[in-house]
Amino acid sequence: MRTTSNTTSLADWMKQCRAHIEIALAECLPSSQLTPAHLHQAMRYAVLDGGKRVRPLLVFAAGQLIDDSSEERGYGEIHSELLRTACAVEMIHAYSLVHDDMPCMDDDALRRGKPTVHVQFGEATALLAGDALQAQAFYLLSQGKNPPERQLEMLEILAQASGSLGMCGGQAIDLASVGMNLSLEQLEQMHQLKTGALLRAAVLMGALCGQEINASARDALHRYANAIGLAFQVVDDILDATSDSATLGKTAGKDAANNKPTYVSILGLEASKKLAENCRMEAHNALQVLTSAQSNSHTLRLSQLADFIVQRSE
Amino acid sequence: MRTTSNTTSLADWMKQCRAHIEIALAECLPSSQLTPAHLHQAMRYAVLDGGKRVRPLLVFAAGQLIDDSSEERGYGEIHSELLRTACAVEMIHAYSLVHDDMPCMDDDALRRGKPTVHVQFGEATALLAGDALQAQAFYLLSQGKNPPERQLEMLEILAQASGSLGMCGGQAIDLASVGMNLSLEQLEQMHQLKTGALLRAAVLMGALCGQEINASARDALHRYANAIGLAFQVVDDILDATSDSATLGKTAGKDAANNKPTYVSILGLEASKKLAENCRMEAHNALQVLTSAQSNSHTLRLSQLADFIVQRSE
Repeated sequence: MRTTSNTTSLADWMKQCRAHIEIALAECLPSSQLTPAHLHQAMRYAVLDGGKRVRPLLVFAAGQLIDDSSEERGYGEIHSELLRTACAVEMIHAYSLVHDDMPCMDDDALRRGKPTVHVQFGEATALLAGDALQAQAFYLLSQGKNPPERQLEMLEILAQASGSLGMCGGQAIDLASVGMNLSLEQLEQMHQLKTGALLRAAVLMGALCGQEINASARDALHRYANAIGLAFQVVDDILDATSDSATLGKTAGKDAANNKPTYVSILGLEASKKLAENCRMEAHNALQVLTSAQSNSHTLRLSQLADFIVQRSE
Repeated sequence: MRTTSNTTSLADWMKQCRAHIEIALAECLPSSQLTPAHLHQAMRYAVLDGGKRVRPLLVFAAGQLIDDSSEERGYGEIHSELLRTACAVEMIHAYSLVHDDMPCMDDDALRRGKPTVHVQFGEATALLAGDALQAQAFYLLSQGKNPPERQLEMLEILAQASGSLGMCGGQAIDLASVGMNLSLEQLEQMHQLKTGALLRAAVLMGALCGQEINASARDALHRYANAIGLAFQVVDDILDATSDSATLGKTAGKDAANNKPTYVSILGLEASKKLAENCRMEAHNALQVLTSAQSNSHTLRLSQLADFIVQRSE
């Protein structure tokens, strides 16, 4: 039975993507029998069987830009490159969670409803599993079959988004901000690095899997990614303040308990909800600019994901 | 004043290389004033002003393969690519030391005669600095100006050497082996991953900076790198058993105190010295094969480094 982009619901599309990604992740991680088995088990535990897979979904949604019909054909030729890219981005995300949960960082015992990696495997193995997952992400991406110049650019994007001027830098600022009165601007700068950088990388890398992207389209993608990145964090803060741990699959109310500044603590709940909604609209506006900048752009899934990120309940 | 390969002593050549590398490392790490400054300070502290720079020296020595005269011209056009590659490899090495020294791993307070990164900057920052250094290594290499296919191969080599089937995997086996009776074969397998993988990568990546390497020459380079990798570890164990902390710049006698198997504990001191000498000869044999396999190969510095690695006293 043939389905088209317009008839597959977002929920079904996400389900299909997640199933593909889960299989691909399982395939591109070393087997749990391979020496050193304990390390490989920890790496697989950290990555598989859990997570919303927001970054991989963004890779796939952006990969749809060039060719709407690709979705019908399982994304055709670019399918394997999108999968590879999605797995690389998700491995970076997963490693950051492993390290973030460690006692010297957030000291969290619960993640995705399961014991965290250091609780399950010990601290030393958690440290090494995170390190090895980062290396594996770059290894995977070095195998990509896009034109080599573009593949190198994708590696550059992922490395920059992961490093001290991206995700790691954001985590450092986050750590330093515990108990401090951050301004809204400082909070936003922190999140732009901590979560925003990798979300932006996912969108841009997904788009690059299929095609060259012109400068105006890049700007629009960047604007879209910034908007959903901010929305993602604001909604995270709202959920942390309003949900219970069972729903979230992680310890709820932790930010307030840790005296960490959040959008809710700075703006209040109602203004935070308003901000998330504004971000959602900004994302849609950016996609309209994108459609004008690069002809034949297909933005259905990117558009739906912007809605999903704001309206999710976990 | 013009010097040639044959008139510059190894000591002077190493001094020159190290000076170039120190400047390049300082330039390719984010400034200590840049936000987040504490993280960038920790990254620079971990990398700069210390270390034997064995891996960068191997990159340069292998870079000499294609063109002996390159040394006279400061390695000419490939100089900047060798520097970039040397910095990337050294950043991976430096991050591994930062994480290795942490309390959940070896819990070491002294490195290169200075307080370790977590002692100086705190555990959380040490964790993030290591993570960010790994990302920075891949970022740096993604900027390389070798032909893109070859640059991608270099990224693949570095990622594989760093990951769970390379350096991280070796550290995991090392951790698991504390207090166990390893056989000589098991000890060798552990070190082949823990230190050997990155030494091999340094040699191969240095050679690839200038040229394509044919299969026979690759085999010979691999053989050379395996021999010096093993020699390096055996000599490390000998020095750990026979030197004091002031000479080593790190805590001496630590392996025995931690009940870690070493070449000295398994073979005894004299047999370990014999093994190191055998490795040195095997390295020289491999270089002779290399010279036959790839015409116009220049192996002076690789040859001298094999001697240096065995005969060093720190």
